[in-house]
Amino acid sequence: MDKDPVLQLRIFDLNCWGIRYLSKLRQERIEMIGDVLSTEGFDLALLQEVWSEGDYSQLKQKLSSRYSSSHYFKSGVIGSGLCVFSRYPILDTFLYQYSVNGYPYMIQHGDWFCGKSVGLVVIKIREIIFNVYVTHLHAEYCRDRDAYLPHRVVQAWELAQFIQHTAKGADVVLLGGDLNMHPEDVGIRLLRGWTGLRDSFAHTEKFEGCKDGCTLVPDNCFTNKKEMRWFPQGIRIDYVLYQALSHYTITCESLVTTTGTAPGKDVPYSDHEAVMATLHVEEQGGAEKGPSCTRAEPELVDTLNEARTEVRVGLHTAERQRYSCGRMAVLALLLLLLQGAMGLSSLLGGTLQQPFPKLSFSLLGLLAVVALLASGVLCLFHTIEVRMLQGTEEQMRLALQSLQHKLSCA
Amino acid sequence: MDKDPVLQLRIFDLNCWGIRYLSKLRQERIEMIGDVLSTEGFDLALLQEVWSEGDYSQLKQKLSSRYSSSHYFKSGVIGSGLCVFSRYPILDTFLYQYSVNGYPYMIQHGDWFCGKSVGLVVIKIREIIFNVYVTHLHAEYCRDRDAYLPHRVVQAWELAQFIQHTAKGADVVLLGGDLNMHPEDVGIRLLRGWTGLRDSFAHTEKFEGCKDGCTLVPDNCFTNKKEMRWFPQGIRIDYVLYQALSHYTITCESLVTTTGTAPGKDVPYSDHEAVMATLHVEEQGGAEKGPSCTRAEPELVDTLNEARTEVRVGLHTAERQRYSCGRMAVLALLLLLLQGAMGLSSLLGGTLQQPFPKLSFSLLGLLAVVALLASGVLCLFHTIEVRMLQGTEEQMRLALQSLQHKLSCA
Repeated sequence: MDKDPVLQLRIFDLNCWGIRYLSKLRQERIEMIGDVLSTEGFDLALLQEVWSEGDYSQLKQKLSSRYSSSHYFKSGVIGSGLCVFSRYPILDTFLYQYSVNGYPYMIQHGDWFCGKSVGLVVIKIREIIFNVYVTHLHAEYCRDRDAYLPHRVVQAWELAQFIQHTAKGADVVLLGGDLNMHPEDVGIRLLRGWTGLRDSFAHTEKFEGCKDGCTLVPDNCFTNKKEMRWFPQGIRIDYVLYQALSHYTITCESLVTTTGTAPGKDVPYSDHEAVMATLHVEEQGGAEKGPSCTRAEPELVDTLNEARTEVRVGLHTAERQRYSCGRMAVLALLLLLLQGAMGLSSLLGGTLQQPFPKLSFSLLGLLAVVALLASGVLCLFHTIEVRMLQGTEEQMRLALQSLQHKLSCA
Repeated sequence: MDKDPVLQLRIFDLNCWGIRYLSKLRQERIEMIGDVLSTEGFDLALLQEVWSEGDYSQLKQKLSSRYSSSHYFKSGVIGSGLCVFSRYPILDTFLYQYSVNGYPYMIQHGDWFCGKSVGLVVIKIREIIFNVYVTHLHAEYCRDRDAYLPHRVVQAWELAQFIQHTAKGADVVLLGGDLNMHPEDVGIRLLRGWTGLRDSFAHTEKFEGCKDGCTLVPDNCFTNKKEMRWFPQGIRIDYVLYQALSHYTITCESLVTTTGTAPGKDVPYSDHEAVMATLHVEEQGGAEKGPSCTRAEPELVDTLNEARTEVRVGLHTAERQRYSCGRMAVLALLLLLLQGAMGLSSLLGGTLQQPFPKLSFSLLGLLAVVALLASGVLCLFHTIEVRMLQGTEEQMRLALQSLQHKLSCA
């Protein structure tokens, strides 16, 4: 194999749906994922939603003979859920946490608590430096009225920028993960356009699996059928993207997805389908254009403009929310001051008589304190959100300027 | 100048102490900073603590003729305070927010509210790519019992890693900022050792300014004399660091600091001294060792071990704080449930008699609600802190492994 000029790399990517106490058959499925990784000859496994560190440890123990190196990325309250198993030694790791990621009060969605991030591991195979990125973006809960779209667009932009800035020392860039975006969504067009990364489904020589490469399909017994009613064939939101820089070329020889159940089993690995890509890396003379040089194409300008508009919509919403919270805090404070004055006055035997029953008065006071604390904290939260969205919008403006300058010079 | 093989670059770095309503003579000083930047021929100005966007706009307007490009980095509740003015077009920007940064309840220190970060701007001068970083780390309020040391060490490590991973496409790396670390502190040794960046004060050919290059000196009328009592000559915490990669060399021709007052004035620019470096960049044949290849030196292993110990100390503290907050939340909840049961019982005419005066009972209820909310939020906060410190500790362990492997192979 060492003398073969072509390096073959087999990648396994899966959103494992490993939420403790909530995900069905979690332990059985983690067991199955461990089995497939240890029996099939993958070189890299990029996993998301491994929320339990116990599950990670179990996988690590099971896979230690085949995958010499692994890394679990920690962030947020319950961990990022991201981990990587590699047959080759991991030389370095780095984590970038997205600046916006939903709302802490949307507990039923819970994305905020995971501290959504992109993890980078650097590996070296036969002197070729691989920058391998694994990520999971904010989920889309309602496509028609997607309140999280601006946050997801910001995450896609930060992901693109992070790859763009960190990949310059690499020969090959790989990105795997649940991007929570359909293939033609603005975020993924921005990511592909800005970094030059290629979608393995679009460029594979051979494909086998769900129609259109879907990774969330109605045939999977764990998917929410109601959420899939507008997409009878399913949707594609899990990706393996790749790119060769410097003097290498990379091709996708084959791409396979599971099809609702794990091969030879009745149960799927997860509510998502696994994506398995076989890539070929080869040395070549000429240099391929890499992320060090974003291609100035009119289409990219349109995409960036579209993304910027989404960020502006998010900014407008965040400013409104900050204003509402601020106003609520001021009202709660006024109520509290008024109550304090009335309470003091009646205590000191003043002329003002207490007009309310004592219980209502106490409950009202309690409500005011809770409202003041909660709206104060939320006002801080939305202020940070506003700053981050303003910063992104400004960054995008600068990027557009640079692109348009390149286009006018071309 | 275009034909001169040596590129001369003049850099101005200053912590501007621009806190609205709190910093003395803020507007006059911003005016003075604008004056010196427009009259002196600097190429780059790296400013920190410009908290007011109004101050930034004022500077931008004043400096637009000399500094064609500028960028203000937004983050946190009140903004990162970081901005850059450049004579050359800024091609790209990127912001990395440190994962830990003090505590929101330490309002008197306020660092948490700034979202401390490192900002990157990319500029190109005569086909040489410069990655310019500007940052401001968490302040040290008490050197003997520095509660923020673990956070600052994590920030220094993340700064080193961020530079290490993003600088590989650059020809020259520049870092300016208030690092809040003395020259021999573990964080700055780690930063220098890990990235290979050189301290302009240690390597300058010519120096002029405060003794030992100090940037916080008792002669400055704005410094807190009590805080300086152990350092009669002052301390050096503001730095300009540099490094040439690929086929360039860089030298520091001269370094100048202000000395308690602005030249020709009675008032200083800030409570910090400004650092002004003149650098020479020249093309050469051979390649200099850059951040793409951390030098494996036994000393660096010791430094990394020392830093890891600090992170562990921080982890221990964070775990204790998380535990205390969790326990407090549980106690407050129990008290609230008990009060609820007693209140209901007395309302429904039960046999249990209300043993407390109504006012004390209400106040106790209020206290329990406030304690529950506050300790719940803080428990979440410290859980995130624990995760980030665990993640950093794990990253450092991996880095140590890599270093030791390199050393044993050397």
